[in-house]
Amino acid sequence: MQSFELTVDKFLDHAAKWFGDHEVVWAEKGVSVARLGYAALRERANRLSGALVALDVRTGDRIGTLAWNTRDHLEVYYAVMGIGCVCHTLNPRLTPAQIAAMINEADDRILAVATDMMPLLAQILPHCPGVRHVIELDGDEAVKEGSDATLSKQALLAAHGTPVEWGGFEENAPAGLCYTSGTTGRPKGVLYTHRSNYLHTLRALQADVVGLTGRDVLLLAVPMFHANGWGLPFAAPAAGTKLVLPGRHLDGASLARIIRAEGVTVAVGVQTVWLGLVDHLDRTGEDVPSLERVIIGGSNCPEALLDRLQTRLGARVQTSWGMTELSPIGTMSPASAAPGPSGSAGRPPLGLDLKLTDADGATLPIQREAQGHLKVRGPSVLERYLDANAGSLDAEGYFDTGDLATIDASGNLTICGRAKDLIKSGGEWINPAEIEAIVGAHSSVRHVAVIARADPRWGERPVLVVEGGPTVDARTLLDLLRGKVADWWIPDLVATVAAMPLASTGKIDKARLRADYDQGLIAAEKA
Amino acid sequence: MQSFELTVDKFLDHAAKWFGDHEVVWAEKGVSVARLGYAALRERANRLSGALVALDVRTGDRIGTLAWNTRDHLEVYYAVMGIGCVCHTLNPRLTPAQIAAMINEADDRILAVATDMMPLLAQILPHCPGVRHVIELDGDEAVKEGSDATLSKQALLAAHGTPVEWGGFEENAPAGLCYTSGTTGRPKGVLYTHRSNYLHTLRALQADVVGLTGRDVLLLAVPMFHANGWGLPFAAPAAGTKLVLPGRHLDGASLARIIRAEGVTVAVGVQTVWLGLVDHLDRTGEDVPSLERVIIGGSNCPEALLDRLQTRLGARVQTSWGMTELSPIGTMSPASAAPGPSGSAGRPPLGLDLKLTDADGATLPIQREAQGHLKVRGPSVLERYLDANAGSLDAEGYFDTGDLATIDASGNLTICGRAKDLIKSGGEWINPAEIEAIVGAHSSVRHVAVIARADPRWGERPVLVVEGGPTVDARTLLDLLRGKVADWWIPDLVATVAAMPLASTGKIDKARLRADYDQGLIAAEKA
Repeated sequence: MQSFELTVDKFLDHAAKWFGDHEVVWAEKGVSVARLGYAALRERANRLSGALVALDVRTGDRIGTLAWNTRDHLEVYYAVMGIGCVCHTLNPRLTPAQIAAMINEADDRILAVATDMMPLLAQILPHCPGVRHVIELDGDEAVKEGSDATLSKQALLAAHGTPVEWGGFEENAPAGLCYTSGTTGRPKGVLYTHRSNYLHTLRALQADVVGLTGRDVLLLAVPMFHANGWGLPFAAPAAGTKLVLPGRHLDGASLARIIRAEGVTVAVGVQTVWLGLVDHLDRTGEDVPSLERVIIGGSNCPEALLDRLQTRLGARVQTSWGMTELSPIGTMSPASAAPGPSGSAGRPPLGLDLKLTDADGATLPIQREAQGHLKVRGPSVLERYLDANAGSLDAEGYFDTGDLATIDASGNLTICGRAKDLIKSGGEWINPAEIEAIVGAHSSVRHVAVIARADPRWGERPVLVVEGGPTVDARTLLDLLRGKVADWWIPDLVATVAAMPLASTGKIDKARLRADYDQGLIAAEKA
Repeated sequence: MQSFELTVDKFLDHAAKWFGDHEVVWAEKGVSVARLGYAALRERANRLSGALVALDVRTGDRIGTLAWNTRDHLEVYYAVMGIGCVCHTLNPRLTPAQIAAMINEADDRILAVATDMMPLLAQILPHCPGVRHVIELDGDEAVKEGSDATLSKQALLAAHGTPVEWGGFEENAPAGLCYTSGTTGRPKGVLYTHRSNYLHTLRALQADVVGLTGRDVLLLAVPMFHANGWGLPFAAPAAGTKLVLPGRHLDGASLARIIRAEGVTVAVGVQTVWLGLVDHLDRTGEDVPSLERVIIGGSNCPEALLDRLQTRLGARVQTSWGMTELSPIGTMSPASAAPGPSGSAGRPPLGLDLKLTDADGATLPIQREAQGHLKVRGPSVLERYLDANAGSLDAEGYFDTGDLATIDASGNLTICGRAKDLIKSGGEWINPAEIEAIVGAHSSVRHVAVIARADPRWGERPVLVVEGGPTVDARTLLDLLRGKVADWWIPDLVATVAAMPLASTGKIDKARLRADYDQGLIAAEKA
């Protein structure tokens, strides 16, 4: 059969040729500010490739981006990857020092930066001597002069935007770079290849997964700087799906407005975003009748929340689980069926294999209805982190997710916590996630975390840390646990914090919490 | 990212692990004769692999099959491909001499043959000295002794059916072999690889293509000996879809019975099969309420027929075009939209690129609303035929389909005829397919073909050959053409035949028709 490199530029080629007038819409605060067909977008992205070549970019060079979900950001994806360079999406919610460290480790030569991130860039750039050019995105269409250090994209295109040929490199060439959120350690770089992205896209496009069609309108409410925007900047053009990029603002009012204006059928984002939408609809009495499906991920979704979302949005909700290291989709509840049991994250589609092991890595003899360490394998799963000395796989080629999980008899995965979070007390394991789920259900608790403290007698003991309203009472919270977990699992110390430290993805930063506790910055009391 | 060979054994592994109790049902005359879950089917297929190894099969060996759509045939697919051998599906509708020639050219070492094809095999085997073993399929479950030459599958499994490890070869290894129908030349072998089949499967599983889900029930009414059964023996387990194999009998009564009994939601086959079903439903007043989609291919479908199918079956009909050389799906009308214009065959899903050229291979400057020679490119498209000296691709890597086609402004492909069928008359081209479409619409015409005869003045002139009822009048048929085609396109000779020669796939055998005409076996008259 024919040789045919699986490279991501072919997604936009396909969209431009067969869905040339299907639109990409960029909105801010729920109002579209630009729209163009895939044919026009491809032409713009391709001319940007030409401009990059004119800036002396070479195959394999890494180009950083600092941008929200905008048309220009999408064009940069394809402009960079189409000529065999690596698109390194940076997370603007990190500190300037963290971002600078990633730019330096990745050796980014050029940065493409949204206009409204230029102040952030000013704090970063002095620490990044390797950056040769900055391209300013999202400006108006008029050609304007950049400053000495900064090239406006429009000026660059006007001067050097000549079309180039995309492709011509092999499918195992790197295409994208994204760092993990680093809630349980230092952020680590994950280098995606064209092949891994291409196969991830086909996996996502299966009817029971994201299953986009040419008549769908997709609202991408997950940041494009986070794990390829869940792979959807590839999947949408590959399926000819109209794509709505909501810019920076993901509040309920903005999302409701753009969903109605563009006739969105499928919406993707973390559950807090959709909660915000439902709150807004409840307040205003508005509806979003075009919406058919909502895909959520990022954390387990309790059944009550799932019901509220499905009822109020009039849409089927698909739960999911993923990781930066998985490109990122892992499991998803099928589009053609109701979600699995409460808190479950669906099933693995073709192309991802799961296994559960014990703490020593031995495969559990019974894989269903038992809890184990979750390991995964597939063509879109990490083999080794950027610049790591060693691979991260076990003898059978599986990647250790670091998660504890169960799989029910029907094949539904439920994440039960992080293996590293486990607390060893008197030689036995306590799972903080189980305690957090019970305490977190209390209406006056905003955030909850259980961390370990050193204990001379038991080795480790759990500490309950809570961010909540003024009415929260430590004893009430611990009483919730009685009868639901073993008595010796119940924390003997409770701390209340004004604000839980959050990582850039919104997850609780447990490493920082533990450090703060160890340094005496958090006061805990016996309950 | 991880290395991961795209091999087809992973489809059945996935089904066995995640959809172990989703069934494969084998039926004869519309009544199920065997059913088992994917987990059990995988175990049986894997033990058959063990038995093949015990018969001294080596990686890369070719194993022929002569069977209808049955459970055992599906098991042979995976048993053979899972250990890196090549499954060579033979078409039992060919002559014994043709089949023997293919077995010899392919160097098949083992044949797996359905019980009811043993009489056919007896005519073939004396001409195939290279065949070492014959395995008889589809027998009852009792272990019975084979004859000297023949091993019963059950006896073989009982003696040697030990589990083996599947995989361990690279994704570009050959997996399957199928011959073209040879209506316009000698049948040619197409050797599929694991990679081409894997990528074809993912292409088919997109929501807008075949788009199977875990809640679907698929009726596979295209022969598994014909171009991988349109790839669906791979796609069904990959998506966890319950699979109904209807055996030999595809009459309307049998299909209606099994559709109702098994709750079939998606049915796939050539349009004559579905016409038979509709005729049966009209006769009996029965319905098939579970049916949601019907995918048809093999020939252009006129709008009136499409309407009749959709209305009577209460199902959306997807039209398609494919070729053995394409693994075989080429284009398909989207599952999420109404079919394109009358006679069109849908759009190319991601992973197949089309272009139209002139007769010399130059790309047409305007690709839409113009007729050209259809060339295709993609990872599941043939590069060269089996044992061919040279590749079949043009300088840009495209395969010449031999078809003439147009693509409309919306991207819908319509096949307009075969380039080789074109008739050159006075230096200008006549397209027989256009004449055939007009004459074929007459109610008393069963089959129509336009062929070339040598003409001393014009070079070639068209002859109209018709198989029809007793009321057909040559002049009436030619009158249909006036005003619709150029006057000089209208055939000046008309022949009536009692039975049109058909190739094994049901297409008219034009090569034979031309030969018969040239030898004076068909009498034509001036109309």
